[in-house]
Amino acid sequence: MTNAQVTLVQLDNYGPWTVTPEPRREADLQTLQSRLYADLSQFLGTRDGYAFFTRFDNMIAVTNGIDRADHRRLQESLRNRYPVTVSLGIGSGANPTDALVDATAHLQAAGSAQDAERREVLAGDPIAEAERADDDVRIAHFDVNDATGKYTDELDAFSTFVRIEQGYAALMRTLHDEHDGLAFFVGGDNVIALVPDLARDTYADVIERVRDDADMSLKVGVGAGRTATDAGMAAKHALEVCREEGTTVEGV
Amino acid sequence: MTNAQVTLVQLDNYGPWTVTPEPRREADLQTLQSRLYADLSQFLGTRDGYAFFTRFDNMIAVTNGIDRADHRRLQESLRNRYPVTVSLGIGSGANPTDALVDATAHLQAAGSAQDAERREVLAGDPIAEAERADDDVRIAHFDVNDATGKYTDELDAFSTFVRIEQGYAALMRTLHDEHDGLAFFVGGDNVIALVPDLARDTYADVIERVRDDADMSLKVGVGAGRTATDAGMAAKHALEVCREEGTTVEGV
Amino acid sequence: MTNAQVTLVQLDNYGPWTVTPEPRREADLQTLQSRLYADLSQFLGTRDGYAFFTRFDNMIAVTNGIDRADHRRLQESLRNRYPVTVSLGIGSGANPTDALVDATAHLQAAGSAQDAERREVLAGDPIAEAERADDDVRIAHFDVNDATGKYTDELDAFSTFVRIEQGYAALMRTLHDEHDGLAFFVGGDNVIALVPDLARDTYADVIERVRDDADMSLKVGVGAGRTATDAGMAAKHALEVCREEGTTVEGV
Amino acid sequence: MTNAQVTLVQLDNYGPWTVTPEPRREADLQTLQSRLYADLSQFLGTRDGYAFFTRFDNMIAVTNGIDRADHRRLQESLRNRYPVTVSLGIGSGANPTDALVDATAHLQAAGSAQDAERREVLAGDPIAEAERADDDVRIAHFDVNDATGKYTDELDAFSTFVRIEQGYAALMRTLHDEHDGLAFFVGGDNVIALVPDLARDTYADVIERVRDDADMSLKVGVGAGRTATDAGMAAKHALEVCREEGTTVEGV
Repeated sequence: MTNAQVTLVQLDNYGPWTVTPEPRREADLQTLQSRLYADLSQFLGTRDGYAFFTRFDNMIAVTNGIDRADHRRLQESLRNRYPVTVSLGIGSGANPTDALVDATAHLQAAGSAQDAERREVLAGDPIAEAERADDDVRIAHFDVNDATGKYTDELDAFSTFVRIEQGYAALMRTLHDEHDGLAFFVGGDNVIALVPDLARDTYADVIERVRDDADMSLKVGVGAGRTATDAGMAAKHALEVCREEGTTVEGV
Repeated sequence: MTNAQVTLVQLDNYGPWTVTPEPRREADLQTLQSRLYADLSQFLGTRDGYAFFTRFDNMIAVTNGIDRADHRRLQESLRNRYPVTVSLGIGSGANPTDALVDATAHLQAAGSAQDAERREVLAGDPIAEAERADDDVRIAHFDVNDATGKYTDELDAFSTFVRIEQGYAALMRTLHDEHDGLAFFVGGDNVIALVPDLARDTYADVIERVRDDADMSLKVGVGAGRTATDAGMAAKHALEVCREEGTTVEGV
Repeated sequence: MTNAQVTLVQLDNYGPWTVTPEPRREADLQTLQSRLYADLSQFLGTRDGYAFFTRFDNMIAVTNGIDRADHRRLQESLRNRYPVTVSLGIGSGANPTDALVDATAHLQAAGSAQDAERREVLAGDPIAEAERADDDVRIAHFDVNDATGKYTDELDAFSTFVRIEQGYAALMRTLHDEHDGLAFFVGGDNVIALVPDLARDTYADVIERVRDDADMSLKVGVGAGRTATDAGMAAKHALEVCREEGTTVEGV
Repeated sequence: MTNAQVTLVQLDNYGPWTVTPEPRREADLQTLQSRLYADLSQFLGTRDGYAFFTRFDNMIAVTNGIDRADHRRLQESLRNRYPVTVSLGIGSGANPTDALVDATAHLQAAGSAQDAERREVLAGDPIAEAERADDDVRIAHFDVNDATGKYTDELDAFSTFVRIEQGYAALMRTLHDEHDGLAFFVGGDNVIALVPDLARDTYADVIERVRDDADMSLKVGVGAGRTATDAGMAAKHALEVCREEGTTVEGV
């Protein structure tokens, strides 16, 4: 069994804030959101976590090895520098989906995302140090075969984007509904997924499914580690092997 | 006819850079990408443009009123502060899709996105000042009815995200394939689309289609203006009317 | 006569905010201040202005060519993204000192910097477009002769810093008290001054004075222009001539 | 004896870079420098260190409790996101001045700050965990009595700045030359100093000296701790006591 620790980062009462007292300029909101995410990525990333932007007002992170004091410090740092605050739910479970269900439940139990009174909740518990293992986190890093040659340099930019999005949607659904994995688009033609321990054949099946559903050819590198960074760097190196060898699944 | 000016922002040879000499840490790449996007959004936004993060290595912006000198200054500012450079293609056309096809063609004509020699291209022409009109840009701002009550506070965070993504995918395809519009997810439960002049009934049909395809209820505010900010703020105010009145389409 | 337009940027009621409800962490305050300054520098700089960090809660900018609408947009952008707001006083006058006296007076007339009720003042008037001239702004860019060889590589880092600070203090006082110029340390061994039209001999005297008072050898490049960027780039190129030719004063 | 750990952060070959191939725009350099400093402050600050901007191309930090791996990670994060790199020298000693002399010597031994070949040096050793004590770091936080009432609201902004700078220069020299302390202006009317264990009377003398030399009235809160944050927060609380009680020296 894997033992991912997942943190749900939710901006408190953000939707209403964006239109109070009247709608705020979209460019400022986009700047605010993407910088707050960048800070989250840097804070967690330099502590060997991974943060995904997801919906920006709800972000999902892999936080094995990051304790409650760090989570609290993150909340304080954001509160001191932004006009908004964040609530954090920490979860774990038999697989990534269960871990996020757990993290979400902690925040939902504390109140609505649009409850003006619910601010800076910190709920749920990190995995105890004694229970951590060297393969707690598994990361699968997918990319599209020759995306630049087949799409970026050939189609108009939006058509390429539509293709990438459709491939991502098919991959996200398959991994989530059938394998309890959480897949995130991270830019370019890259998708990073937090996954349970899956067999080589399963990855081949998933890639086949995406080819059928979205007519897109993927390859994947898989890695395991004590933290998201350990697992993620192993996955990146495995993906480099795919590139060099022309293979489709490496690292598992 | 609408007269949108669209700029394609493409990071030069970015994919290879991310794995040279070996794969760079994902958290640093995410921080780099989202901050570069934030700077783009702020630079263009305070000049009344809109920038969308799209794939982060390929970003799409609405730039009516922003001239070549501004585009050049943007390239210089980024070059002076980031380890990567950007190429810019400027396009226009009878509808948003055509404008982006034009913008893309300018960059593709200059070389591949992964050509190490192709750097800081600036190609294509802004719309001449004399040809600009007060309704050049049309923006449709969609959101999900009661997303917090139905999804965020009820489902786990990834299931909500999957639902939002599916609704976005359906909306993006319908607008692009049938109406030559470009729709972008901008966080939360919001999608902003650059659209041609569409009838009220068309919006009702689009919303119906998304309900059928993705079982999601949307509403939309529409606005027109000389710039993206003008059109976008009008759309936001129209969407507020939807919220207050319980209506589905406003502003058109 | 010169015709500099100067803007005083004052954070509203900032001191009290930093200790409410109890003292905020210094690292967060430093991050907040320096990023807000960076945004100011980018917003004004890409409009051909210059911003100096000064005291961070009171910053001084040269804003020729930047109108009231731009100033208002700057206030809005900061308000939407930071937990603090800024007031702006715009001034002009026969020389830089007078211009800043004018800018300051506008804010002081509106209330105290620590008045909780005084927020987002925008006072004072930009120079009318018809009155602007191609030599409105004069910039003198100073640096220390062989600072790296004599100080950075020889003394410990704080002793070097003390030396640079003492040289800067002497230069700042001389330019301000005797020549109505405003000098700002901008990092490294560089000082940029907003100056009136001074003679070549005056610069030589100023440099001699700093040598006497602080035992430090400076050189200077001077430039004039319609905007701070025009004048500042001319000054930088003149300073490059000093470096190449081994001269002490260039550009005037 | 105190046991401060000091890190000198030096941008590699920065001066030449700013003028290659020709002078870069000052606004971009200012944005780059202040954001890099903000990242440094955030990285070290959330690990209980303090970073001071000093000359921006040479920054000084108090890093007790921050190990070599963290320093290495900081270098990597900056290299991945900026067009410049940093070298780091770590030092310790009987007092703050000695610690910085030690830190500086490590970098100078590795080459010149403007040596194009010297990049990303990491030299010197953190204090061993077993040798750390709960009062290793002493911080003195000074501010000016009624700076807003006496200066900001009364004088023009540059005259206020000149006064604050002169007070800071006097304080910096006295602490450095006579007491082996390192004082840094941190914005507003605040100076934070890394100090050895000084007596209450010594602080009273230092304040008297600044009054004589620069006609400025200061107060100071002093704190000790295992880290810069612990010491710095204690100093801030002591300064609040000064404010409430109308006293001049607290915390020692």
